This record gives sequence, structure tokens and C-alpha cells, in this order.
Amino acid sequence: MIQAAVVGAAGYIGGELIRLLVGHPQVEIVHAVSRTLRGRPVDSVHPNLRGRTRLTFSSADQLDRCDVLFLATPHRETMQRMPEFLTRAGVVIDLSGDFRLRDAHTYENYYGSPHEAPELLSTFTQGTPEFHRESLRTADRISVPGCMATAGILSLVPLAEAGLIRDDITVDARTGSSGSGAKAGSENLHAERSGALRVFAPTRHRHEAEMAQATGHTVRMTATGVEAVRGVQLLCRARLADGVDERAIRAAYRSRFADEPFVRIVAARRGMHRFPDAKILSGSNFCDVGFALDRGSSTVTVIAALDNLVKGGAGNAVQCMNVRFGEPEERGLEFTGLHPN
Amino acid sequence: MIQAAVVGAAGYIGGELIRLLVGHPQVEIVHAVSRTLRGRPVDSVHPNLRGRTRLTFSSADQLDRCDVLFLATPHRETMQRMPEFLTRAGVVIDLSGDFRLRDAHTYENYYGSPHEAPELLSTFTQGTPEFHRESLRTADRISVPGCMATAGILSLVPLAEAGLIRDDITVDARTGSSGSGAKAGSENLHAERSGALRVFAPTRHRHEAEMAQATGHTVRMTATGVEAVRGVQLLCRARLADGVDERAIRAAYRSRFADEPFVRIVAARRGMHRFPDAKILSGSNFCDVGFALDRGSSTVTVIAALDNLVKGGAGNAVQCMNVRFGEPEERGLEFTGLHPN
Amino acid sequence: MIQAAVVGAAGYIGGELIRLLVGHPQVEIVHAVSRTLRGRPVDSVHPNLRGRTRLTFSSADQLDRCDVLFLATPHRETMQRMPEFLTRAGVVIDLSGDFRLRDAHTYENYYGSPHEAPELLSTFTQGTPEFHRESLRTADRISVPGCMATAGILSLVPLAEAGLIRDDITVDARTGSSGSGAKAGSENLHAERSGALRVFAPTRHRHEAEMAQATGHTVRMTATGVEAVRGVQLLCRARLADGVDERAIRAAYRSRFADEPFVRIVAARRGMHRFPDAKILSGSNFCDVGFALDRGSSTVTVIAALDNLVKGGAGNAVQCMNVRFGEPEERGLEFTGLHPN
Amino acid sequence: MIQAAVVGAAGYIGGELIRLLVGHPQVEIVHAVSRTLRGRPVDSVHPNLRGRTRLTFSSADQLDRCDVLFLATPHRETMQRMPEFLTRAGVVIDLSGDFRLRDAHTYENYYGSPHEAPELLSTFTQGTPEFHRESLRTADRISVPGCMATAGILSLVPLAEAGLIRDDITVDARTGSSGSGAKAGSENLHAERSGALRVFAPTRHRHEAEMAQATGHTVRMTATGVEAVRGVQLLCRARLADGVDERAIRAAYRSRFADEPFVRIVAARRGMHRFPDAKILSGSNFCDVGFALDRGSSTVTVIAALDNLVKGGAGNAVQCMNVRFGEPEERGLEFTGLHPN
Repeated sequence: MIQAAVVGAAGYIGGELIRLLVGHPQVEIVHAVSRTLRGRPVDSVHPNLRGRTRLTFSSADQLDRCDVLFLATPHRETMQRMPEFLTRAGVVIDLSGDFRLRDAHTYENYYGSPHEAPELLSTFTQGTPEFHRESLRTADRISVPGCMATAGILSLVPLAEAGLIRDDITVDARTGSSGSGAKAGSENLHAERSGALRVFAPTRHRHEAEMAQATGHTVRMTATGVEAVRGVQLLCRARLADGVDERAIRAAYRSRFADEPFVRIVAARRGMHRFPDAKILSGSNFCDVGFALDRGSSTVTVIAALDNLVKGGAGNAVQCMNVRFGEPEERGLEFTGLHPN
Repeated sequence: MIQAAVVGAAGYIGGELIRLLVGHPQVEIVHAVSRTLRGRPVDSVHPNLRGRTRLTFSSADQLDRCDVLFLATPHRETMQRMPEFLTRAGVVIDLSGDFRLRDAHTYENYYGSPHEAPELLSTFTQGTPEFHRESLRTADRISVPGCMATAGILSLVPLAEAGLIRDDITVDARTGSSGSGAKAGSENLHAERSGALRVFAPTRHRHEAEMAQATGHTVRMTATGVEAVRGVQLLCRARLADGVDERAIRAAYRSRFADEPFVRIVAARRGMHRFPDAKILSGSNFCDVGFALDRGSSTVTVIAALDNLVKGGAGNAVQCMNVRFGEPEERGLEFTGLHPN
Repeated sequence: MIQAAVVGAAGYIGGELIRLLVGHPQVEIVHAVSRTLRGRPVDSVHPNLRGRTRLTFSSADQLDRCDVLFLATPHRETMQRMPEFLTRAGVVIDLSGDFRLRDAHTYENYYGSPHEAPELLSTFTQGTPEFHRESLRTADRISVPGCMATAGILSLVPLAEAGLIRDDITVDARTGSSGSGAKAGSENLHAERSGALRVFAPTRHRHEAEMAQATGHTVRMTATGVEAVRGVQLLCRARLADGVDERAIRAAYRSRFADEPFVRIVAARRGMHRFPDAKILSGSNFCDVGFALDRGSSTVTVIAALDNLVKGGAGNAVQCMNVRFGEPEERGLEFTGLHPN
Repeated sequence: MIQAAVVGAAGYIGGELIRLLVGHPQVEIVHAVSRTLRGRPVDSVHPNLRGRTRLTFSSADQLDRCDVLFLATPHRETMQRMPEFLTRAGVVIDLSGDFRLRDAHTYENYYGSPHEAPELLSTFTQGTPEFHRESLRTADRISVPGCMATAGILSLVPLAEAGLIRDDITVDARTGSSGSGAKAGSENLHAERSGALRVFAPTRHRHEAEMAQATGHTVRMTATGVEAVRGVQLLCRARLADGVDERAIRAAYRSRFADEPFVRIVAARRGMHRFPDAKILSGSNFCDVGFALDRGSSTVTVIAALDNLVKGGAGNAVQCMNVRFGEPEERGLEFTGLHPN
């Protein structure tokens, strides 16, 4: 059994980690750490887990050494406490933003303050099994990308690395409210957020930097909050290199994803389900990727969707854990999503 | 012109009062009071008013004497400040819960602490024009009922006063999130409240006491938060007195509401719109009332719906003001609601 | 391996059956029958199953004999074809309404036309494992209750059979749109149904008869469509027999459900998750049951919630199959539901 | 009084026209034409109008000559019947797609079949008062742009005509379900459409052609259905001409829209309402326009929002009527929108 602990267990990513780990036959959760809820049952905050776990929250100082430590902690605090975290577990899987960007200057540029542990940046492996599976098999420090970044990386890197994209990429990202976390703030009140189409980051969202890092292209992203609790959908546009046609794009995706258990190419000619839609992905670890090409056009529209708390966070982290510990990669991640939903 | 002021102008009821008063041709808003937002434009908090008002928030100590003062203030605080408020305006229209119940013991029973101005209770007139129009024409102190209470009073009193109801009444009340106000709290986070069917008051909701007071019957009410921002719908059940049939019920409603501009009887034989539904009432001052009777049954099901911020609050208050100041009763309340919506 | 077939596989209950059976390690789906979609891939209609099944729809005349046949067919058509269906499988599990009521007169009363196979009525076992587990172990004909009926049966029968309820029961049922099925009709258009609180059955809903049959009490139910795709929530009220208090009610539920894997008692003193809410049950096979009792009152409010397509339909059917074929009862039904969702 | 008739009165645009015209003090509706509902009360289909009109539907052959005829009829049918319609009224205001594009080849290209009345194309004036007010004062044939097109035209033309945009424009359009009309189809079922992020037109949506026509630029638009009944929001991106900065953009909008009653510039530094959001526009005739510019970037992001049935359809048509008949332009369009909503 893999002994696992979760720090930040009372939040939405933390709760999703616990849900997945409770259902994983080879994992035992030894600590669910919450700063404020020590001693309270985990299912009082995550009511879906009633009857599935008797775990109670513990405090960080109760953390014993374990096999794998998941960090669902805020950025900044994470890099400050990272040296301590690294002593507590053989493998640390970080879901905060602090170790996603390899370059400390870029970090400062996007996060607004200097990185406080720049010497650790290069020691983390990016937690995208589809592109870093071999490194992950032996990685002890894993940084899971942001939810929108994962959708962007999975859908854009295959085109970029095959040289199919000519220059800049624009991304229109839509996201549900759970991405804002479990903290109350007036902008996340139901009455304010319900039915909203809120452009909350017209430019310079942090996940933009991750996509630029992964693709090698300039990325301009706009982020809009839409009516959904879970779910991210990206609409990306890029000009294609000379001579690139639909066949070349489909081939690039196929060669990358043919054997991937959690990436599906969804690009049908017709039907209401012809392109990726987060609506049917809640709870699942899929990232659906599709594209459309106008006849005679040299611009591709790429569409990607995932559940921000699963493939965009906790599920991706568990997939990394499976790779790292030699478990079958789909274990604990079998849920297929619901339709209708 | 009627000079009006609103205290509690930054909240949802306060914002709705301003929306209605800005559109009222005979009203000038002289103060929009907010404890915390003094000096800020009103449309920074109520963005629907952009281009419609240049009003800024003021503080309570800037309140000059005016013709009518609307109180959208929290209960308890309202009764404490009421003596002062009464010196500021010829007419005070209170939308808090503090002066809705005539009996101080009932107040304590439902609000959990003693009433602090019991001597004022009997000086307030209930702000339900349909039943208290004559008193309202000269009333200087008006207490507007709660949102769910207004739906219950309008739909149940005609039956009760005609002696059609045998004994106790049960009420299943469903309400949107705006009823919880503009203050952030984790239970009103979009991610928690979206799609919820949350039984937040299985028994003893405060509006139950108002319905009991108005009908003279014991009322057992359960309140459930449903997926909506605006809107209240009530499903009431009561056993009928001997011999009461559909015709008698319809007659009771007709005799009460035939000339009412804001109560519609909605009880059709078929069709998807056969009963009252808050969905089409957003922004309107209507309370739709309907009922169904099973053949051979002696139990009536009464259904009522309204927009909690309009007929359930600010609109009802403006209607009371119109009655009091001799304005046509529908003035400023002409919006008819949207379909689809 | 259990060889299973689904008739009515293109509908929502049919799709949910396939989702659950695809994930069940001891089941092989041999036929997914759809009248109109023969030859088309199942995942073209149920896009959540992409990558999880290569099944295509077949027509009814292709049905070979199998171990278990699930019927997600319309009522009326089901009873007409039942003699034929019974020849195709050792075990038939019917999810239509045709064999839920034991009494042909009650059927005619609620369904509006005579039962066409009354001689078969008594040969079906009610598919509620919590109350009929022993019979189900050997039953070859199983009739799964309606979605709202299952919530009512599970939450009311423990009180009724313990003699705690005095007389009639009223039920306020709220349901999501998936309960109306996958057929297009103007009343189910998104623009019409979104945000609706539509009282579509003020009296005499068919599921009312099932609850009456199971509890032995008169049941008066009102059904309202609420904003949700999945989910049923019931609010039931009943007067209690003399001397019945909270302790007695809790004891009745505990003695019935202590060892049940899919019924949870949810009745906390406080918190936003204190009562059952369908919001967190999507995809799970749980039925959550709670109750509230006013101090000094002799009326109990019972609250129940489930996913209408799972515990209210396909999941319950799979649970029955597990019981019948000696499989562990939770197999294939492990999904725990999502929070937030 | 202006005598008005509406053809296609049972649809969503038709219903919105009736709502606005019923509330317009200078208009009398003489006919509400519906092919299938002749003789039925208008409020049976548009329940928000209960108590506000006693109008019944009539058939087209009952159409007497009137002052203004609004066409909310399907494209193709509209051009076929246009010669007849032109004989029935002094002024025809067409809300179909048939007379929006001036070039018959472009029409065929986007609508898939040849235009059947090309000789009439040049006789129509585009119904955008903000840009064609003078022509509209005397126009007898007016073609109201598409809902997304209006948002695009209002937000992009000021930049294009001032020469601020360098080359192609991309548009990500998000739209609510009412844009699909009142006809039932499985893709508009609530269970399918609720919570969807459905890319239904990755390229070549018809409104794209209208934007190209108005701006003189190539426009690449993608249309996504989002969770909303009403509402359109556009996110447009364009590279700026040399030296164009934020000040120049703001100046271009101000000079165009400073005196416009229904266009608001919404581009604040912070706050949850800093950019246009259709959420607060339901029922109002506003088009909110905003923009964001990354420091150092030469790409502008333009954001526009409106209610597709009002400023994107019926409201715009009524505004055109007001201009044409010399009425104050805001008459009948005073509703300010709701917050929260």
C-alpha cells in the first residue's frame, strides 16, 4: 500500500484528491491536513464522502513521513514551506503554482513577487504523463500544471512540436467557479456568479505562461468565468505553417495520443457532441481535444475540455502517482463521466 | 416630486429600490446610504444602473429630512435605530423583519432575542396593499412583509378569511440565492449553492410566523434553497372546510383580486405555464397565485410565485409608497417580466 | 461473465445502464437495442462512453437469449412486449412503469388505460434491495420502482412499518429534467425549462401510487420540475403516532439501514450539508435520507434525495442484478459522487 | 398611434416584440400573426404578458394594412414572402437573415442557397441606429442585424472606421439558448443544453459575414452555446495599427458613443463588473462595449454583450421604429436590466 498524505485537504482540490485516493485500492491516506479543521471529520466538509471514509483532519505538525505527499496549498506559502515538505515524503506532488514555471523571472513577472526558492525550480518534473512519462517514473518532485494550462498543453504541444504552428497562439479560456477555490468572497457569491460571463483576466493570466513554456510560442490568453461549477474549455487559434492541412493535424494528435488512456480526440463532422465539452467530463480524468479548420483557411481552431478538479488537478496528480509508483495508470481514475449531466 | 432616501442601499434589496425609484417619474432619490461605501458611485455596486444614475453613496449622518425613507437594513439594527429614522422622514417604509410581527413574544420566539422597541410595534401598518390599502393611504410607518411571507399572505388569506380552510396549513417554500443578501459566506458560494436543493430551514422559518399572523391558522413551513438568483415559489397545502369545491376557491380569489394590478390567478387546465412559476417574474411586481384540487379530495394545493426582490421586497415597498402618496399604484412598476428567461 | 442486454438503450436510463454495465467487471453487454439507431456506435449518443466501449446499437430482432435483460422501454409498450421479452433472458429487469403496481385497477386509475397483462403483475418482485433482498436472490422478474417512488419508499417505509406514522402523508417532489427522457418536446426546451419551478403534476402523479402501495398510507404528492438535469429530492410530511419522538425515528432508520451500502442517514444539527441534497449525488447510487422534527410538534418532515438515473433507475437495477447473480452488491456502483458539483 | 403588426409572433423574437410594443405608449398592435395558433390568446404562449394584453393570434391572410410590419419569420421564407409583405405596411422591419447582407453571392456562400429576391437587397437600410440613424429616419425597409452581429458591429466598427485595426479580426461568440428559437429539437433539450459549452459553429457562422461587411475586415468567428437563456457575449481580438494605444481606442469609442442612449463603455480597472457581461442585461436594450490592452502589446481584446432578444433583435427593431416615426428613441425601451439576476 502507498501511504499518502494531503496538505490543504479542506479545499476543493484537496477534497478531490481524497475522493480519488479513497477509491484507489493501493493507497492508504494517512493524513488529511487542514490548518483550521483539525479533529473534524473529513466528510463534514466533503459530504460526498459520507460512508466512504472515517478520516478526520489533522494539523501539519502531525504529519509523519509517508510515501507520497500531495500539496493543495496556496502559491507562495507552498514555496516557503517546500523545504520542510520535502523532508516528509519520498515523493512530493505539488498542485500549487509555485513550481510550474522553470524560470524565476517569468514567475515574478506573472505572480508579482520574486520566487523564494529558485534553486528548487529545476528539481521538479512537470506532471503531464502524456509528455513526461519516462521522467515521472523516477521523479521525486512533481509539479502538476494549472487546470487551464493542462488543457492548453495537451491540445497545443502536439501541433507545436510537429512544427505545424506558424507564430502566436490565442486562447479563449472558459472556467467554472470551483477553480476559484472554497474561500468565500463576494465575487464568488452565487447571486453574482450564477449565469455570469465574467472576463476576469483579459490578459496575463498565470496559466498563459505555462502554455508558452510548453509550446515555445507566444500565447495570449483571456479567461472568462462561465456558468459551471466544474469544467474548463479552451478555444485556441493559431495560424498554420505552409501546407498544413487537416490530415496533418489529425496525424499529429493521433501519433501523440493513440495509446493515451485519458486523452480523446473529439472532432466529428456533425452532431451536438462533435467537439469537446466539459459538461460530460465532470468527475472524469479525460481531456478531450478537438479541432476545426475552415476550408481554404490557414488558421486552426483547437478546442480542449477537462474537469478542472480532476484532469486539471487532482486526477492528473493521481495519474502521476500511478506512473511514479508503478501502478496501472488508470487505477482509481476509472470514472467515465455522465451524460446527460 | 417625492424626495426619497434608501438606507442599506448597497445590498440587493437596496439596489432594487434604487432601480425602481430611478425609473419612477415622480421620485427623486436624495440619499443612498451605505455604511462602507460613502462617496463611491452607486453603479459601481449595481452595474445595471450604469448610465441611469450618477448617484453616489452617502453615510447615515448625511441623511437630511425627506418625504419617504426606505429601510433595507438588517433586523435588530433596524429596531435599535428606528427612533432616529422616524425623525428623518414623514413616511418610513421598513423592509427589515423587525416590525412585521405585532406580538413581541412571537418576535422573540422566532428571532431568538427580545424585541427592543415593542412600544412601536402597533404603530406600523402592514405593507400589503391588497389587504391594507385604505390604512396605507395615511400610514406614516409601513412594514413590508418578508418575501416568502408576501407570497403566502396573498395566496392564503383569501381562503382563510372566506372560511374555506379547515385547520393547519403546510408550506413548502423554495427560494433563490438573492434572498440571502450580498454578504459573502461559504454557504452562498457559487460552487456550493449552484444546483443545490438545500433545506436550510426545515421548521420555524421567520416568515412562517407572518403567515400565521395573517391567516389565523397554524402554519408549518419548510424553506429550501433552489437554483435561482431571484424567485420564490410556495406550495401550500390545507384541508378544506366541508363542501368547499373548486368553484368556491376560484370565487374567493376572484372577489379579492379581480381589480388588483399585481396579483394574477394562474390555474389553467393544461400547458407548461399552467401554474405560477417565478422564472417569468424576474423584475416584475406580480405575485401569481394558483391552486389545484384533486377530484374527490378535500385538500387544496395552493401555488404562489413572485420575485423576492420586487413584489417580495422593493417593488411592494414602492407600491406602498404610491398608495401613500396618491400616485397611480402601478407607476414605476410597469415591467412585465421576461419569457423566455 | 453475466451476459446482459439493454432494450431502450438510446434513452437516458438506457445510457446509464450501459455506463454502469461497461464498468462492471463481471458483465458483458451483448446487445444495446434501439429501434432507430441500429448500427450506429453507442458513443455517438452517449458521448461520455467514448473510448470505453465499441458497442453499436442493434435492433430488437437481433436479440439473442442472454442472462439478464434490462428494459428501459416506455410504459404500455413494455407490457405488450413482455411475453416476448420473457423468452429472451433468464432474468428480466423492467424499468418501465408497467409492473410496479400490483393491482390492475390502481394501474388503470393512474395510467389512464387498462393493464394489458394483469396476469403477470404478481410474478414480478419489487426491485428495492433494501426491502426485498431475499426475494430478489431468486427472482427472475424484477420491476424497478420509479425514481421519485424509490426516494419515497426508502424514506417512508421504515417509519410506516414501525407504526410511527398516524395517517396521510404529503410529498413535495422536485425533479431534474432528465426524468422527462431524451425525446424533444417544447416543454423540455432549455429556454423553457432552465430555471423553472414548474408544478407539472399538482396531484395524481403515478409515483404517488407506488408510495401508497409500499407504505400502506394515503399519499398526496405534488411534483415540481426544478433547475437540474439529474436529481430528485422529496420533502415528505406526516403526523406521528402518539409519543413518537426524534429518538424513535432515528432508531427506525438505523435498524433498517445500518448495514445498507447505499442508504445514508443525513440529519445533522447544522451546516449547509445537514440534509439530503441531490446536488452531490449525481452518478452515485446513494439515496440519502434525513428528517427534522419541530420541538413540541407531532409532525415529521422527511427529506430524501437521489440521482434519478442511478438509484432512481439504472443503478438500482444493477444493484438488483448483483443481488440476483450473487455478485457483491456494490460492484459497478462504487462511484461516490462529486463535491462541489 | 402607430399601428403595428408582428408576423412570427409565437416565437421568441416575436414574443419580445409584443412585450415591447405592449409597453410602448404610442403603439397599438393590430395583428400578432402565427401560422398555427390563430385564435389562441397571445399570453398562452407568452405567459409574462398575462394581464397586460388580451390580444389573440391571427393568421397572415387577416393582415390589414398597417403603419409598421415586424417580420420575425424564418430566413428563406421571408424573402419569398417579402413582395407580399411590402404591400401590407408603410414600413417593414425585417428581423430575419434574408436582407442583412448586401451581396447576393455572400448570401449564397453563407446561407447555402441562392438569394431569391436579390433585386430587393439594396432597398433595405441596416437597422443599427448608432451608425445609420439619418437613413433610418426615412427608411421604409429596414433589416435588423443578427444578435451576435449587432454586438460585433457596435464594438468593432468604431475601431475599424478610425483605422485602428491592422488586419483580420477573430471573434469568440458565446450565446444563450433562446437564440435557437422556440422549436423543439433534441440539441436544445434542457438535459443536453444545460451547462453545455457547445462549439456549434467553429467556423462560418452567418453573423460573421455581417461583421465583415460592416467592418471591411476579414472576420473569423467561432460560436459557442453557453449556459444562459438570454445573452450574447463576444470576445474579439485584433492587431492594432502602429502607434495605437489605449487612449486612442477609448477616444474612438467615446466619439462614437458619447451620446448614444443604448451603448455603454464598460472597461474598468478592477471589480467584478469591469467588463461587459450579458448577465445584467436581460430585458434591457443596452449593448455594453469594453476592451483591454496588454502593456506592450499591439493586440486589443474587445468585449461586447447584449440581450440577444432585445438589443440583438426586438429592442433594436423598436429603436429603429422610434427613429423612423419620430418617437423619442428610448421610448418603450426604458427597462434597465437587473442585478443580481
